[in-house]
Amino acid sequence: MTVTNSDQRYEIVKSLIEQEDWEALSEVIEKLPTVEIVEILEKIDEEHQLVVFSLFSKKEKAQIFGELPADEQYYFFQHLDKRDFSKIFQDMRSDERADFYQDLSVGEQSALLPYLNKQVRSNVLELSGYEADSAGGIMTTDFATVRNWMTVRQAVDKIKLDSPGKKMIYYVYVVDNEKTLLGFVTLKDLILAELDDKIEDLVHVDFVAAQVDDDRENVAKMIEKYNLVALPIINIERKLLGIVRHDDAIDVIVQEQTEDMERLMGIQPSAEADEDEGYLDLSVFKHFKKRVVWLVSLGIMGMISGLILHHFEEALDKMVILALYMPMLADTGGNAGSQASTVVIRALSLGEVRSKDWWLITFKEMRISLLLAICLSTVACIKVFVLSYDAVLPGHLTLTYVAFIISLALALQVVSSTLIGAGLPLIVRKFGGDPAVVASPAITTIVDVTGLLIYFSLATAFLLN
Amino acid sequence: MTVTNSDQRYEIVKSLIEQEDWEALSEVIEKLPTVEIVEILEKIDEEHQLVVFSLFSKKEKAQIFGELPADEQYYFFQHLDKRDFSKIFQDMRSDERADFYQDLSVGEQSALLPYLNKQVRSNVLELSGYEADSAGGIMTTDFATVRNWMTVRQAVDKIKLDSPGKKMIYYVYVVDNEKTLLGFVTLKDLILAELDDKIEDLVHVDFVAAQVDDDRENVAKMIEKYNLVALPIINIERKLLGIVRHDDAIDVIVQEQTEDMERLMGIQPSAEADEDEGYLDLSVFKHFKKRVVWLVSLGIMGMISGLILHHFEEALDKMVILALYMPMLADTGGNAGSQASTVVIRALSLGEVRSKDWWLITFKEMRISLLLAICLSTVACIKVFVLSYDAVLPGHLTLTYVAFIISLALALQVVSSTLIGAGLPLIVRKFGGDPAVVASPAITTIVDVTGLLIYFSLATAFLLN
Repeated sequence: MTVTNSDQRYEIVKSLIEQEDWEALSEVIEKLPTVEIVEILEKIDEEHQLVVFSLFSKKEKAQIFGELPADEQYYFFQHLDKRDFSKIFQDMRSDERADFYQDLSVGEQSALLPYLNKQVRSNVLELSGYEADSAGGIMTTDFATVRNWMTVRQAVDKIKLDSPGKKMIYYVYVVDNEKTLLGFVTLKDLILAELDDKIEDLVHVDFVAAQVDDDRENVAKMIEKYNLVALPIINIERKLLGIVRHDDAIDVIVQEQTEDMERLMGIQPSAEADEDEGYLDLSVFKHFKKRVVWLVSLGIMGMISGLILHHFEEALDKMVILALYMPMLADTGGNAGSQASTVVIRALSLGEVRSKDWWLITFKEMRISLLLAICLSTVACIKVFVLSYDAVLPGHLTLTYVAFIISLALALQVVSSTLIGAGLPLIVRKFGGDPAVVASPAITTIVDVTGLLIYFSLATAFLLN
Repeated sequence: MTVTNSDQRYEIVKSLIEQEDWEALSEVIEKLPTVEIVEILEKIDEEHQLVVFSLFSKKEKAQIFGELPADEQYYFFQHLDKRDFSKIFQDMRSDERADFYQDLSVGEQSALLPYLNKQVRSNVLELSGYEADSAGGIMTTDFATVRNWMTVRQAVDKIKLDSPGKKMIYYVYVVDNEKTLLGFVTLKDLILAELDDKIEDLVHVDFVAAQVDDDRENVAKMIEKYNLVALPIINIERKLLGIVRHDDAIDVIVQEQTEDMERLMGIQPSAEADEDEGYLDLSVFKHFKKRVVWLVSLGIMGMISGLILHHFEEALDKMVILALYMPMLADTGGNAGSQASTVVIRALSLGEVRSKDWWLITFKEMRISLLLAICLSTVACIKVFVLSYDAVLPGHLTLTYVAFIISLALALQVVSSTLIGAGLPLIVRKFGGDPAVVASPAITTIVDVTGLLIYFSLATAFLLN
């Protein structure tokens, strides 16, 4: 990076605070991007936070406050004068404002409302009424609108009146007098046009939009697919209610990815859709709660493997060598299955395949698994020869024969685990569920069971009669 | 969604093609977003693709071609007249143009160059010289620049001359006469200013930028962190070389996520950084190659577990009950370890923790694992009682005692696996590596070994003397 290191900038700020040189500090922090100011505020101790915060202008305070984490926001809320706070609140981005409002208690909300002007009050109540993980829950109402009959000159004048700098985005929406969305013009269009050109000659009428109750992940995917700077959000009557910005789309995508990866490992996603606590902030008990559910379920599901082993206890007693290679079957099956399910879940999630492609996927996985089975059973054969060269075997059995049977079991295990791993997400999707719930631990446990059945059935049939 | 379903639009297009009604088809496809046109072209058969493609204007062709997948692009390249192709090529976005050029053979490149005008030729050669996974490899050179001494009126005139509509992005860069980057103004700034205002009064001089050889994932993260529409790319002398757009940043983030998830499962990432073949397009053999490496390595690493089991073969012979619970220890350890490593890898990747926070992380994981260990060993105890109520045990041992020892082994396994799972990514990061290479199969194999050691050491010490 070419700008000075953000750690260095933090050190400078810290020393200026220690010296209580508020004037110099003011000069330095004015230039910093909001996201770094937020990081700095989080690091300095509480008594100094409010002092530093007071050095900013009203507009800057609103921007900074909007990007603070929820617990910091609450701390400031409790320590700022109600009238001062309401001024900051009214200048915030409408979506961040609504998010903060939603987290307040009913008493705190009632105490705040009287300080807000009518427009802000109704806006906050409207936005905080939407589900947190819907388009309405992440949209902002800060956008500019113009009318079809306007000239570029008139449109620009309206934009200057409506949208004080910070909050407007690069698309300007064209609506009728009932706020029905007719199309949009970009700032690019406006800049490159002549002042007397009419909006109706520039407007793009073919546009994508999302409904206010659409899932936020679908909204983010649309923004990604169509390379948009912002996506308009409308209701059934096609009235423009808000927009979702590209930067919010990236945040949703990253957050949903974290959930998917965790879910793949059997970790419960956060209960609140907008819970933004990072790893270190989340309490030990909350971490525990997220992980224990799956681990215990696994333990219980493992009873089935236990029952199978109990059933085949005699076989194990007669040929202890069988116990030596049980882990190999379990591990290989678990990993082959997990790989297949990860690949299929990812392909479904990126829209590369649909559940109606199930046969193509199954056929592909079958061929992949055959190649893998050949490789891995060869490795298994070698392992048996190397590790059990001195094994004592019952009766007529040779090591070669035993190695062959064990390798055959492994080959069947690899093929079946791969097909199970690829198939389960498809089945879940077919029934309308989210394939990512088929977590790796589920696959591992299921292929444990099938692996043991394959293994001991073959052993009983060929080695123990 | 409020626009007609894209499947429906495809059906309409398909029927118009069958009827060879090119005029009506032209009207319909004109309105479609580029990304949908690309999807439609991929679905229709090859003989019709070129005909449909020819219905578009030169500019539209360039846009569409740029977004086609690589194999489609190559097909068109082979079947279009060289002169026609070079016209399309020159109108493409500079980053997409360079990507296509890089994939051509040396012979094809030499055949194409003479058809290009001097400016495009040098641009293509410059951009294709950068590493595919660096900032230079994903940047575009299509941006507008203005000078500090200009008025808004003059700046807008220059923008109109320089950048035919499509390719410009919403930040306009302010440079000196040697193309050194001094700052930027946004189209918002320009629209809201008076025509006689000076650029130097509007320019933002505090900006972030990245070096042309920075890793593309870091570039995408900067765009995400600072909520940018575009990030300028400069060289050591701070000369502006290109920009990376927000939509490319989202694509990089999604692609890197896929790699991380796959790597977590031991699947090799694609050899080419920009290989964009989806699940169904990738050949069976390529899928196999991506997965076999890890599975075979696992098999080989599993030799260590095999050796340990071989060492403790006597113990298994004496107490077959021990074999019954081996899978439980392996599974629980593997999953606890995988969960811990996923969480830590994710936290490191999102910047929520640094490797210098290792003690905080270790201490947190220790406490989480203790809670998990208590839960899971209780479940284990119950399992032993339920499954082995009728077990024949040697000598003086009671089921209660055996259950206790097995549960103790499990508790120790959970704690050690969690710490190993959390610790390995930290160690890798400390040595400058990418923590995501610590794939789940690696953790599973390692904690298999530690689990067996714990299990059989306890068994030998307490149950078999």
